[in-house]
Amino acid sequence: MSDRHDHEQAIERWRVAPGDRVRLGDVATDATDGAPGDKHETEDACEELVERLAEWQGRLWAEQRQALLLVLQAMDAGGKDGTIRKVFTGVNPQGVAVSAFKAPSAEELAHDFLWRVHRRAPARGEIGVFNRSHYEDVLVVRVEELVPEAVWRPRYGAIRDFEASLGAAGTTVVKLFLHISKDEQAERFQARLDDPTKRWKFSTGDLAVRERWDDYRAAYEEAIAETSTERAPWYVVPADHKWYRNWVVLNVLLATLEGMDPQYPPEEPGLDDIVIR
Amino acid sequence: MSDRHDHEQAIERWRVAPGDRVRLGDVATDATDGAPGDKHETEDACEELVERLAEWQGRLWAEQRQALLLVLQAMDAGGKDGTIRKVFTGVNPQGVAVSAFKAPSAEELAHDFLWRVHRRAPARGEIGVFNRSHYEDVLVVRVEELVPEAVWRPRYGAIRDFEASLGAAGTTVVKLFLHISKDEQAERFQARLDDPTKRWKFSTGDLAVRERWDDYRAAYEEAIAETSTERAPWYVVPADHKWYRNWVVLNVLLATLEGMDPQYPPEEPGLDDIVIR
Repeated sequence: MSDRHDHEQAIERWRVAPGDRVRLGDVATDATDGAPGDKHETEDACEELVERLAEWQGRLWAEQRQALLLVLQAMDAGGKDGTIRKVFTGVNPQGVAVSAFKAPSAEELAHDFLWRVHRRAPARGEIGVFNRSHYEDVLVVRVEELVPEAVWRPRYGAIRDFEASLGAAGTTVVKLFLHISKDEQAERFQARLDDPTKRWKFSTGDLAVRERWDDYRAAYEEAIAETSTERAPWYVVPADHKWYRNWVVLNVLLATLEGMDPQYPPEEPGLDDIVIR
Repeated sequence: MSDRHDHEQAIERWRVAPGDRVRLGDVATDATDGAPGDKHETEDACEELVERLAEWQGRLWAEQRQALLLVLQAMDAGGKDGTIRKVFTGVNPQGVAVSAFKAPSAEELAHDFLWRVHRRAPARGEIGVFNRSHYEDVLVVRVEELVPEAVWRPRYGAIRDFEASLGAAGTTVVKLFLHISKDEQAERFQARLDDPTKRWKFSTGDLAVRERWDDYRAAYEEAIAETSTERAPWYVVPADHKWYRNWVVLNVLLATLEGMDPQYPPEEPGLDDIVIR
């Protein structure tokens, strides 16, 4: 499990350096840089990477000292659900806690915006996956003007502080923006409409959001620039090709876990003398 | 996905009828009744059953109207962790929420015994898995005399009412006792001691619990007899053979899900006229 250099090499081009302002329009949504081959070959490679992820998850769980939090953000139909299914199916669900954040409840709205996500932060030993997250509070909340700028703008700092505090307590945070083109979104919406087993995923409300594509993109650009840090970096993952997206996400997870390097815990002293009757 | 009769047939011999008092000593821990073949053939069959489980989970998730709660109980080394890993690895973790209940925290102890498990009850659309559960409050709590009988005995009724209330709200509850022999436990403890990647799982405290095997067995017998109901049945799963155990657990899940019969939800009206721009 020691080709960390490979995983790091696969992803460094997509990491947002602290302070960088990525112009999303300049990042190809259909990039496949560094992929180990075509779609089929990359999918095969992903199967191996999932097995490796499962091994690391076992170590993390055994160690019970660190946690990993993966934050997934994307435009609608950007592939958050599909990424979770493809990347984590094959990993023991006992150590994986997925939290989907939808429109907040009355109780959640009665608290600060980090309250509901903090409750769902992964425990030691776990990989936590956020399907949407506290970033919605500087994205949809901003674009739809649900609160004034004087409220949402200070949230960048609150988010940096929150994630730093998780990091200090042993939780490594990585954040992924699954980057699709507006055309790709149209195709995926259409595919949902055309498939009876997926039609339920489609809501006419999605079309109103689609009309504000440029506003959302600008909000993402600023949020990413404001909150990508050394310890809790953002990655912009080209996601038009699902197979490439999955491969990048797996490499992000593997590079991160290798950096965390969880170890099997020390055994109780005296185990060598035990005879079981 | 319609051989419900098969799944039902596979498991009915292990279901505890309401009011029945199973004598665990009379149930073979190494039984393999009804298995589709030997170890290898049954493992192959399980792979197919996991795929079927993944399909049902997708429907349950899409429907968002019902939930399934699987309660796993066993003696130490009975295979709770291994069952979760083998049965649910391969199912989308977004719809599976595993909760492990250990010694209660001070806050948990300051509440009634159902408080902490109720918080972890699966949401609509989810499969919840309890690795240990509220049953510990009539098992370890009873055997170790952590509270007097006047406290733990009324809990049987409280558990029946609690599970009935979950059922009335759309959550189907099934409870599995993974049934191993005392010899099998000894072998598994020894295997943990012999494997450097598993040694951390072993605690000398497990040996003290092992000495009270008969007390725990009696406590299980009563708890199962008192709480197996038509709507929330117990299954006693012969678990010395992991491959047979996994096959039974998968059949319990599949028979239960087929009984629940989740459906893709109706689509929004007017979707046929939509053109995406």
